[in-house]
Amino acid sequence: MATVYSLPYLYETDVEWIGERKGDLESPGLASLQVASPPEFQGHQGMWTPEHYFVASVNSCFMTTFLAIAEMSRLELVSFDSKATGKLDKVEGAGYQMTEELSSSQNSSFDTKRTWNGPAESWKKQKGTV
Amino acid sequence: MATVYSLPYLYETDVEWIGERKGDLESPGLASLQVASPPEFQGHQGMWTPEHYFVASVNSCFMTTFLAIAEMSRLELVSFDSKATGKLDKVEGAGYQMTEELSSSQNSSFDTKRTWNGPAESWKKQKGTV
Repeated sequence: MATVYSLPYLYETDVEWIGERKGDLESPGLASLQVASPPEFQGHQGMWTPEHYFVASVNSCFMTTFLAIAEMSRLELVSFDSKATGKLDKVEGAGYQMTEELSSSQNSSFDTKRTWNGPAESWKKQKGTV
Repeated sequence: MATVYSLPYLYETDVEWIGERKGDLESPGLASLQVASPPEFQGHQGMWTPEHYFVASVNSCFMTTFLAIAEMSRLELVSFDSKATGKLDKVEGAGYQMTEELSSSQNSSFDTKRTWNGPAESWKKQKGTV
């Protein structure tokens, strides 16, 4: 029998400090990751930061949502690639904020084989940018 | 000479579909990660999801901010551990939303050696929960 999931869905994380500006990031049943402050906040080079994870979550949510919609639309995906850059800035009276998520038509692309048999005009672009 | 960073700070990510409901997650200079839709959205068990990365970013930002404040306050940290759970629910007329980030006094703790020489009443709790 298939597992039945019921709302709300819960996503657990545990962050434990391991020295300097670094931490271990865990979630039940998942491989451990590490996280650190970025160099511009007295942190470390070459490590995923809270800022990166935030932008990655938005960018990858875009992909998983796209995959779900493509499947519902019976579009057979050939490729999908999306670049997103988060812009962190100081906002007057509000401190640091992720003010923009830059993701334009230049940096997301997909390619599909048309498999849908609905009206052709609905799927004019088999290959395109979003 | 120390590197000088200037605002805004940019955080780049690239997500590329690798089949099923999975993607590779990259950022210049960082080790690759993977991401997948969670099982409750026709995804995969045992993989970090956009939902997990979102909660992880908030939780680890809490840690890195705490570390920065502790350092500015000359508090010598002994340990820091924070659990945070994101609650995803359906919101009438708005679809799925991360409606709550559950992180209470029961699941975040820190322990410090007092090293600050300022007024004692400001740092009554050497060891505590937030």
